[in-house]
Amino acid sequence: MINIAVLGYGTVGSGIVEVLNTNGDSINKRTGKEINIKYVLDLKTFPDDPINKKIIHDFNIILDDPSIKVIAEVMGGVEPAYTFVKEALLRGKSVCTSNKELVAKHGAELLKIAKDKNINFLFEASVGGGIPIIRPLNQSLTADEITEITGILNGTTNYILSKMSEEGLDFNTALKQAQDKGFAERNPEADIEGHDACRKIAILSSLAYGMQVDFEDIYTEGITKITDIDIKYAKVLNTRIKLFASSIKDGDEVHAMVAPFMINSDHPLYSVNEVFNGIFVKGNVIGDVMFYGSGAGKLPTASAVVADIIDAVKNLDRNIWTNWSSKKLELTDIKRIKNRFFIRMSNDAAIYDNKNVEEVIKNKFGVVELVSVDGIDGEIGFITSDILEAEISEMLKELPGVLNLIRVRF
Amino acid sequence: MINIAVLGYGTVGSGIVEVLNTNGDSINKRTGKEINIKYVLDLKTFPDDPINKKIIHDFNIILDDPSIKVIAEVMGGVEPAYTFVKEALLRGKSVCTSNKELVAKHGAELLKIAKDKNINFLFEASVGGGIPIIRPLNQSLTADEITEITGILNGTTNYILSKMSEEGLDFNTALKQAQDKGFAERNPEADIEGHDACRKIAILSSLAYGMQVDFEDIYTEGITKITDIDIKYAKVLNTRIKLFASSIKDGDEVHAMVAPFMINSDHPLYSVNEVFNGIFVKGNVIGDVMFYGSGAGKLPTASAVVADIIDAVKNLDRNIWTNWSSKKLELTDIKRIKNRFFIRMSNDAAIYDNKNVEEVIKNKFGVVELVSVDGIDGEIGFITSDILEAEISEMLKELPGVLNLIRVRF
Repeated sequence: MINIAVLGYGTVGSGIVEVLNTNGDSINKRTGKEINIKYVLDLKTFPDDPINKKIIHDFNIILDDPSIKVIAEVMGGVEPAYTFVKEALLRGKSVCTSNKELVAKHGAELLKIAKDKNINFLFEASVGGGIPIIRPLNQSLTADEITEITGILNGTTNYILSKMSEEGLDFNTALKQAQDKGFAERNPEADIEGHDACRKIAILSSLAYGMQVDFEDIYTEGITKITDIDIKYAKVLNTRIKLFASSIKDGDEVHAMVAPFMINSDHPLYSVNEVFNGIFVKGNVIGDVMFYGSGAGKLPTASAVVADIIDAVKNLDRNIWTNWSSKKLELTDIKRIKNRFFIRMSNDAAIYDNKNVEEVIKNKFGVVELVSVDGIDGEIGFITSDILEAEISEMLKELPGVLNLIRVRF
Repeated sequence: MINIAVLGYGTVGSGIVEVLNTNGDSINKRTGKEINIKYVLDLKTFPDDPINKKIIHDFNIILDDPSIKVIAEVMGGVEPAYTFVKEALLRGKSVCTSNKELVAKHGAELLKIAKDKNINFLFEASVGGGIPIIRPLNQSLTADEITEITGILNGTTNYILSKMSEEGLDFNTALKQAQDKGFAERNPEADIEGHDACRKIAILSSLAYGMQVDFEDIYTEGITKITDIDIKYAKVLNTRIKLFASSIKDGDEVHAMVAPFMINSDHPLYSVNEVFNGIFVKGNVIGDVMFYGSGAGKLPTASAVVADIIDAVKNLDRNIWTNWSSKKLELTDIKRIKNRFFIRMSNDAAIYDNKNVEEVIKNKFGVVELVSVDGIDGEIGFITSDILEAEISEMLKELPGVLNLIRVRF
């Protein structure tokens, strides 16, 4: 038997208990040992839940109990998670976490401590919920140099964009619906502004390129500027708009961004809809691979944490090699990156010194193919060829008639 | 430094050499040791290739060299691969293979020998080419009870069906095109009759359910009966036809089949086109996950073999647990399984004793919604509700007007 402790009895914490109860027999068979939850740390008590007899409020009880070899941290947030996890690792206890803020911020340091102690710091659940992506990056794609990771890494925004597309909702209505269904928080900023996806692509990029990618360095744009009119154009163009979190390696340079992208059905992430996540990885020998599944949710996330617990128990005195050094990777300024853009412009000639908008577009962008949507008057859309991000920023300053702009990847 | 041997210098064998040459530095860093190919076993010589100085023709040289700790077997076919691999494992050498025939037939036995010897028998490349699927099943989805695996596991047939759909080609023209492009063999039977996919789903099912699934027991139907007319109906129905290799667990019963299925865009495998493979897995806690990538090809397949080599080197004296016992899993007879069917029927009343075909369909199948395709006369299509496979076989005997029948999964 092996004793473990769970830090936090919220959604994921109670999911871990449920998964171990539901699949305990096969899990114990696979682990070779019986996994026993000895403590659950939480501020609250749960009088109506059998777990209550295991609830403790003092982390030191866990730290001081030598029988606890593995800890699952599912509290979320950087503190006190960071202090607890670091202390646990220093005391020789392996930690499995679903906490993306913690991993993005302190992953390299915590991995180093685990390595020095010959134990493990595992975080499969921190990106993509239940989708196996950390372990595949770490153990399966080892023959490759990764040249791109692009993910739909946030279920809330993907749900909102899917509903806007399927039901013609505007952003606020779709957000409200996501909140009513429990897919979006009361304060949805971390999701809709892209901060959540940003931390996750920072984690994946650090693993893929083996160096520390600071999430603060990643250009991040959310989905709040996407309107139902944009979605209508996307439909006419046979495309979808998705919030991509992406990092691309070109020679020795890596650039990363979180932003809405317009994609067509040729892209492997095109069919990733609703609350699902998908992660596309390109390697220099394996080519394109893609991983898809539930990016959040109680049981899928708990499934990933429990898989880590099983790995931690099977490797009690053996560090699983992870390619993530603390050396900082300096990302390329996205101003130096080229993208294609879908642009919507007013066709009010008064804005352009009485020039025809089509003429303006042709002169500025060299584009002749224009798109219009039945029932939407007063504007026109088009897709540019590759333009430097720096250049498009300049062009926008001189073009008051631009209504919206969305990057294109096809 | 660690010496390895490669058995077979064909497409995959030369790919392994190329991957190790291309990414050697990072591979050696990840492995912690320099991987050195000491021997390549092949019947032929390769005078113009630098590999020629490592070519040997006698397997005993490898067996008798104690410095060889890991062997990559990429010859294909059951013999002499089986004899070589078994002998190597018995001598304490780990083996990594891409050989699906070998793994499907002798996987359980070879895994047992590897376990007894505390070494490894790894076969990531045997299913889905470069797509990580064996290791995720084995090490990531360990908290779950798997209830379904459905894959597009054969690139040749997927290419043919994609071309038929995209370009309106008939089966023979699409096959010819696949052969011209090197995606199909001169003798394409193993692919187009579903035998290749059958072996792969046998391997995945054995791993998922932890028992031996004999490929001979799996009901297998290829794509040779799919016509360009079926594809036209599929388009009208907003569906695609895909060759699925599928096993589903319902309570204690597992049934498996390889057959063309009609699916719509809600299915995660809908966008798996051309030579790509995709594998959909359902677990009782993780929900739906899907893995996508190049299912074949020199470098993707070699990438998977090399990832296994890296794992074998990192675990020289440590068996990686694999959930596949030799105990036979008795599959449920598919006659007892229900499916929905798309059926095309002649509308020549003479066949039905001068009854109207619509009346016949309504009486037989209770179906009232009929589909027709512009320009295709003399017939009508429809989709049934759930019908037992045994029952549909009986019904077909009494219905001479049936032109084709394709299972439906939506």
